[in-house]
Amino acid sequence: MNTKKVAVILAGCGVFDGSEIQEAVATLLAIDKAGAVYQCFAPDTDQYHVINHLTGEEEPAARNVLAESARIARGDVKQLDTFEPSDFDVLIIPGGFGVAKNLCTFAIDGPGCSVNPETEKAIKRAHDAGIPIGALCISPALMARVLGEVTLTIGSDAGTAQAIESMGATHKNTAGDEIVVDAKNKIVTTPCYMLDSKISTVFRGAENAVNALLEML
Amino acid sequence: MNTKKVAVILAGCGVFDGSEIQEAVATLLAIDKAGAVYQCFAPDTDQYHVINHLTGEEEPAARNVLAESARIARGDVKQLDTFEPSDFDVLIIPGGFGVAKNLCTFAIDGPGCSVNPETEKAIKRAHDAGIPIGALCISPALMARVLGEVTLTIGSDAGTAQAIESMGATHKNTAGDEIVVDAKNKIVTTPCYMLDSKISTVFRGAENAVNALLEML
Repeated sequence: MNTKKVAVILAGCGVFDGSEIQEAVATLLAIDKAGAVYQCFAPDTDQYHVINHLTGEEEPAARNVLAESARIARGDVKQLDTFEPSDFDVLIIPGGFGVAKNLCTFAIDGPGCSVNPETEKAIKRAHDAGIPIGALCISPALMARVLGEVTLTIGSDAGTAQAIESMGATHKNTAGDEIVVDAKNKIVTTPCYMLDSKISTVFRGAENAVNALLEML
Repeated sequence: MNTKKVAVILAGCGVFDGSEIQEAVATLLAIDKAGAVYQCFAPDTDQYHVINHLTGEEEPAARNVLAESARIARGDVKQLDTFEPSDFDVLIIPGGFGVAKNLCTFAIDGPGCSVNPETEKAIKRAHDAGIPIGALCISPALMARVLGEVTLTIGSDAGTAQAIESMGATHKNTAGDEIVVDAKNKIVTTPCYMLDSKISTVFRGAENAVNALLEML
């Protein structure tokens, strides 16, 4: 059996301006536990802004999404524009505000948001190649913006669900570590910290999503 | 049964200048899985320096250990000088170069290193109060510097083991997810990424350490 290869797109390092760290790590752990291997990617672009995670205040500083993502990946992260779908079996995007600020502008602009070009290209090419795609937490908003008519979950927040449906997607409410599988489009989503979950629930949700994606192969 | 409370000391956010993110998250997950609760702490001090985790180069910037630690803790981190041993059952320090650069200067000065005053006080008070203490990865070097005659492991790196023994501690070689339990001093250590481990091995090591600490209660 060939070892399955999973590409993980990161969006920085920290829930309020980057990738949600615990969700990103949960994704990497689940991939390893399933006997697959991962390669992290991130766009080489400045973050939308920098948030002091202690105070919640914006800081007058610039940080690079690729360099900050390298903190989660222990240095081993590649520029997203080098992502080749033919080299991977699965693509996964963990959550965090960075997905809705750096990979797209959903946190600022809502359903009319723009998408980082490298991120849009990676998702479209993976989808066109028939590769299963996983999206955690708020990342389904990005999937809705890029792919449109997909079925997904961001948990149970009515306003966010409505915004996602206005982009053409179908939303299903979920709780805890549940996943939503869109078999036709090969999309798996799970709410993680879009709900007020414990860390162990987030890890089970990420593992459920990763396992469902690998079972599609 | 009372819910057990675990204090976790963080040292920033990123393996090369802060807490090793995956080890810190593994610690939090293991605490939650064991039915205990955690509170993160960090000293309110500047990092020794900032390393670009993509290039490995030092950056001309300052970052605060407490504010960066908040990224791992999703904002919920307290100043280390507010740590009261009587409020907690266990103290744990995950690894990363930040432990050996920000919490002490072992990475720069070796066995003659100085220790951040709040960190030294927290460890000494916890030890004096008979609270079990866990130390992952390179953190046992900090334990050796502060407590001296303890038995511990940093894996199998001969040079680091020798430096630790020169501070009065006894080192035992370990592999993978093994732990060393110093029952007399109530110290539990495990190598994590001091070895070339997979993420799932690191998570098992952290879980083994957390469970051994909780079993001491």
